[in-house]
Amino acid sequence: MKKLLVKGGMTVALLSLSALPVLAQDGEAAPAVTPEVAYIFNTLLFLIGGFLVMWMAAGFAMLEAGLVRSKNVSMQCLKNISLYSIAGLMYWITGYNLMYTGVDGGFIGSFGPYAFDPVGGDALDTGYSTASDWFFQMVFVATAASIVSGTVAERIKLWPFLLFVVVLSGFIYPIAGSWQWGAGWLSEMGFSDFAGSTLVHSVGGWAALTGAIILGARKGKYGADGSVHPLPGSSMPLATLGTFILWLGWFGFNGASQLAMGSIGDVSDISRIFANTNMAAASGVVAAVVLTQIMYKKVDVTMALNGALAGLVSITAEPLAPSVWQTVFIGAVGGAIVVFTVPLLDKLKIDDVVGAIPVHLIAGIWGTLIVPLSNDGASYGVQITGIVAYGVFTVVASAIVWFALKSTIGLRVSEEEEALGLDKVEIGVEAYPEFGMGSQRM
Amino acid sequence: MKKLLVKGGMTVALLSLSALPVLAQDGEAAPAVTPEVAYIFNTLLFLIGGFLVMWMAAGFAMLEAGLVRSKNVSMQCLKNISLYSIAGLMYWITGYNLMYTGVDGGFIGSFGPYAFDPVGGDALDTGYSTASDWFFQMVFVATAASIVSGTVAERIKLWPFLLFVVVLSGFIYPIAGSWQWGAGWLSEMGFSDFAGSTLVHSVGGWAALTGAIILGARKGKYGADGSVHPLPGSSMPLATLGTFILWLGWFGFNGASQLAMGSIGDVSDISRIFANTNMAAASGVVAAVVLTQIMYKKVDVTMALNGALAGLVSITAEPLAPSVWQTVFIGAVGGAIVVFTVPLLDKLKIDDVVGAIPVHLIAGIWGTLIVPLSNDGASYGVQITGIVAYGVFTVVASAIVWFALKSTIGLRVSEEEEALGLDKVEIGVEAYPEFGMGSQRM
Amino acid sequence: MKKLLVKGGMTVALLSLSALPVLAQDGEAAPAVTPEVAYIFNTLLFLIGGFLVMWMAAGFAMLEAGLVRSKNVSMQCLKNISLYSIAGLMYWITGYNLMYTGVDGGFIGSFGPYAFDPVGGDALDTGYSTASDWFFQMVFVATAASIVSGTVAERIKLWPFLLFVVVLSGFIYPIAGSWQWGAGWLSEMGFSDFAGSTLVHSVGGWAALTGAIILGARKGKYGADGSVHPLPGSSMPLATLGTFILWLGWFGFNGASQLAMGSIGDVSDISRIFANTNMAAASGVVAAVVLTQIMYKKVDVTMALNGALAGLVSITAEPLAPSVWQTVFIGAVGGAIVVFTVPLLDKLKIDDVVGAIPVHLIAGIWGTLIVPLSNDGASYGVQITGIVAYGVFTVVASAIVWFALKSTIGLRVSEEEEALGLDKVEIGVEAYPEFGMGSQRM
Repeated sequence: MKKLLVKGGMTVALLSLSALPVLAQDGEAAPAVTPEVAYIFNTLLFLIGGFLVMWMAAGFAMLEAGLVRSKNVSMQCLKNISLYSIAGLMYWITGYNLMYTGVDGGFIGSFGPYAFDPVGGDALDTGYSTASDWFFQMVFVATAASIVSGTVAERIKLWPFLLFVVVLSGFIYPIAGSWQWGAGWLSEMGFSDFAGSTLVHSVGGWAALTGAIILGARKGKYGADGSVHPLPGSSMPLATLGTFILWLGWFGFNGASQLAMGSIGDVSDISRIFANTNMAAASGVVAAVVLTQIMYKKVDVTMALNGALAGLVSITAEPLAPSVWQTVFIGAVGGAIVVFTVPLLDKLKIDDVVGAIPVHLIAGIWGTLIVPLSNDGASYGVQITGIVAYGVFTVVASAIVWFALKSTIGLRVSEEEEALGLDKVEIGVEAYPEFGMGSQRM
Repeated sequence: MKKLLVKGGMTVALLSLSALPVLAQDGEAAPAVTPEVAYIFNTLLFLIGGFLVMWMAAGFAMLEAGLVRSKNVSMQCLKNISLYSIAGLMYWITGYNLMYTGVDGGFIGSFGPYAFDPVGGDALDTGYSTASDWFFQMVFVATAASIVSGTVAERIKLWPFLLFVVVLSGFIYPIAGSWQWGAGWLSEMGFSDFAGSTLVHSVGGWAALTGAIILGARKGKYGADGSVHPLPGSSMPLATLGTFILWLGWFGFNGASQLAMGSIGDVSDISRIFANTNMAAASGVVAAVVLTQIMYKKVDVTMALNGALAGLVSITAEPLAPSVWQTVFIGAVGGAIVVFTVPLLDKLKIDDVVGAIPVHLIAGIWGTLIVPLSNDGASYGVQITGIVAYGVFTVVASAIVWFALKSTIGLRVSEEEEALGLDKVEIGVEAYPEFGMGSQRM
Repeated sequence: MKKLLVKGGMTVALLSLSALPVLAQDGEAAPAVTPEVAYIFNTLLFLIGGFLVMWMAAGFAMLEAGLVRSKNVSMQCLKNISLYSIAGLMYWITGYNLMYTGVDGGFIGSFGPYAFDPVGGDALDTGYSTASDWFFQMVFVATAASIVSGTVAERIKLWPFLLFVVVLSGFIYPIAGSWQWGAGWLSEMGFSDFAGSTLVHSVGGWAALTGAIILGARKGKYGADGSVHPLPGSSMPLATLGTFILWLGWFGFNGASQLAMGSIGDVSDISRIFANTNMAAASGVVAAVVLTQIMYKKVDVTMALNGALAGLVSITAEPLAPSVWQTVFIGAVGGAIVVFTVPLLDKLKIDDVVGAIPVHLIAGIWGTLIVPLSNDGASYGVQITGIVAYGVFTVVASAIVWFALKSTIGLRVSEEEEALGLDKVEIGVEAYPEFGMGSQRM
């Protein structure tokens, strides 16, 4: 194969990204998929995958808007559109190059803004448009930031939250990401995380956990006597919509992480990833529904929604290799994790408003741990090393930022402001002025 | 062109799926679209079509959440995410093979779970990735199940509904589907249903109708004196959102049912299908808006929404062949069907909460019947045969399952539970705890 | 390159649309991207871009449903689904040909319905499927109509609004569009508007402004003493959802306006457009958030949402050429425009319910004006000429239609009807019958 390529007089640098274009029987014939066509397919994959993952920002916004109380819904909407915007800017200013440029087996890339393709770009040797790659990677960092916003909702002030997002998306996530996807030390060690159970979801989850502990629980959530008081979310259909959006976006998240679509092997793998991704989510839902029926004699719709998400997070570290049976097992355990760890967090008085820690952190660890079940190239030892390394780094880095913010501008609204709701205090625009306790009804 | 192909000495096994790749002028030249490139395009079509139809699950969820009363909204959300999950699992466990493997002109396929592509799949002769095909077909069965959930809402218990979905998606739909799309007896007879006016929408509609009759109407819907009491849905914007989602998803539903995108003929046909699909929906809306204005002096927004959906269902049996004028006619009749049959069902005291029977069953019959208007290969006699066969089979099979469930675990909540709302009784999570009659306001 | 093509004996007519397919080293070899493969990619671009822009109809519906008061939400939903339907029909009956057929440097195209591809279309020389092009252009006219519906909400009657949409989508927009995209006089003069800052957004904005002035403000909006009374929208999460939908759809709006994806230069440019589009929106959000915090000590979520949209509109005239720094500047000015011009309109007592005039008209002018900053082919003088020409034409044409409607069937509901809400008066279906002032609570 290589010989024919050389004979054809072409230098092909696509090998790392895409299966080699299949050639016809003799040197005179063109390859079955020319490098130009493969380039278009690869780039198109990033664009489609990118817009699907971008759409997950809306999913998180709706999920969180549905799971907070109506007095904090405008704030949650504002935080979500702002964090997506900040993540986009920061991932250009510092993020991409910190994560991908010049890591070389190390712990960090280079500083400086990223340069897109020039107009009419024709650098065929990359195998894809660099701007499409940037776009696809950028939407991932927004996902990590979205995870945090759900956990710390209903009591954190706007500006410290946004400043945390600046640091998370511009520095913490890219540096952590460089270790593996930037070809850093964990990648050299053989760590395996296909689409980010650890790199995206656990990193977001650790940052969220650290924030939740430092912030403390919402007033009224835990009684002095150890009792737990549910503070029900304001809109189940919006939470359901958010979950469906995330499920849809996940086809881009996992599927386009194949990073190439210019050969029949690659597009078949993407198809397999689509099917497995769906199957894991479905199994997470069924596990959560059945388990809550057995344990509580009622089915909790929020558990079913989080079961879907946990199934998705669980399969994200390895959506390609598992057989369907393995996928069903991995996803169902993800769903079970939600059912069992949501009450556990409440026992520890860690107040996670939307259940992001079970879904993204714990299912993310599960998904990363179980990779060697189906992927012979991975080992349990290295997977654990990676999980621990990401945990330690993210917790320490996040804690430094959270404490720095706490000791300067402060993290939390006052008790009276929390009772009044963040919408009135910091936004001035109520989410539902005509419903419930909205102004016009008071 | 054909001569050149023979001269080129190539064996082309894509014929059943895709138009023949166009060849250049002489034997030495490669085909204009190589089989590998066609494979990638075909698979990509299934993936894009698949994620668009998957998104329809969210559309049904929102449509139904908007059209039930607020006390049953959480239940409706839970049913929709659960049915999509169950459909995915069942269509792998039994569905796909029952529908597509070894039907051979008969009435049923084979038993057993479906096997996806292996990793790095390279079986070029299929013309597309098998996992992508599975994914695309799977989302269709979820659509059929979604149709049922809307009709029987607000009084059916959760578990009998979910068990019905297990049987519908694992057995009834796939067996029925095998007759036509699995190359079974109706296909051999010359029945024509491009994307499923009958196979998907009428099958779902018949199952829904059977369920509605066996369940009976909601308390308070029909007075003893024959009066009809509207029970208005809780959120028109959610119903509107659901309709737009379904409209968007329908481009995948009809467009990707072309099943191939690897030639200019195929991609042009897909484009024509997109345009016709949009035109039929638009005509359905305009017909419903104009007719309700004339008949009631007011325009009912739910009629406009269902008009769009009925237009879409109507064109689904043949979205390719009709001229634009024919498309406008077909879609507008679909919209009119909604306006005239919604009151008719009420006269028969068949309580269809969201109007799914007019939209999916009656417009589905209309769309299937009218195929010969534009498609010379179809005949009215065979179309009627198919419609009747699907009706009889689905009604009988559904009735058996509904009655079996009724006589064992029971189908319907008690009268008090119905008054209280399914959310409080079976879910324990209210949809809008702070609004309307939500707990905190009582 | 041309020589090789001639030597190969092929006639290639794709030049106007797509970069020339790259050829291999000698005459015998096939082109790297064959015209057939380029045709499929080009058509696929229109289909993907088309369904993304179609989805923007849902975005406008949700944005407007969230920003009107609950008594007018059903009406706003109905108007949006109806206008999308009417735009689709009118753009087939007269629109497309008025805009694209036989303009030849002039002011208007031809009359008559548009003909899609025949079934199995094989006219390779167009370079793309004509039906896909129609579909993509059609969804743009719907966008222009959606802009109007938001501004004139809460007081205009249904039928005059729909009749205005008939004229706008069938005549005003296509004639105006023919001047530039139909290769009319402005195009010959060198005007530059890549994806429609002026052709779509300003045209919609001018029509909206004219309507708002002729209709007058909502009762209660402006006090006799010059005071301004906010009439808060009913649902911030729906407005947020709508904004995210529009943001997603904009990747299709701008990206697919490249009009070709069959070469690596084209797909790289599309990637660059995706990245720039996202960056402009993000900058608009950040500018609006920072400015409202500084000016009002609170952050207004509706300003953040409109900041995103204004950033998007601003970059739409030239999403390809600007460097990232230029993009950030262009988008941030867009966000600032919203913050400063929303209060300005209130001073002029022009009642724009959703803020569409600042977002679409003023940011549209800004985006068109600033094109020469990054695009050497454009000049400020010609840009201003185009902006003025579109403004004069649209204002005059719209005013004629608005006044004709006013003097015949009337534009505005009565004062009592406005107080009661359009849903009760014209629709008969309340949006939220169980919440707020919904019927069951009265």
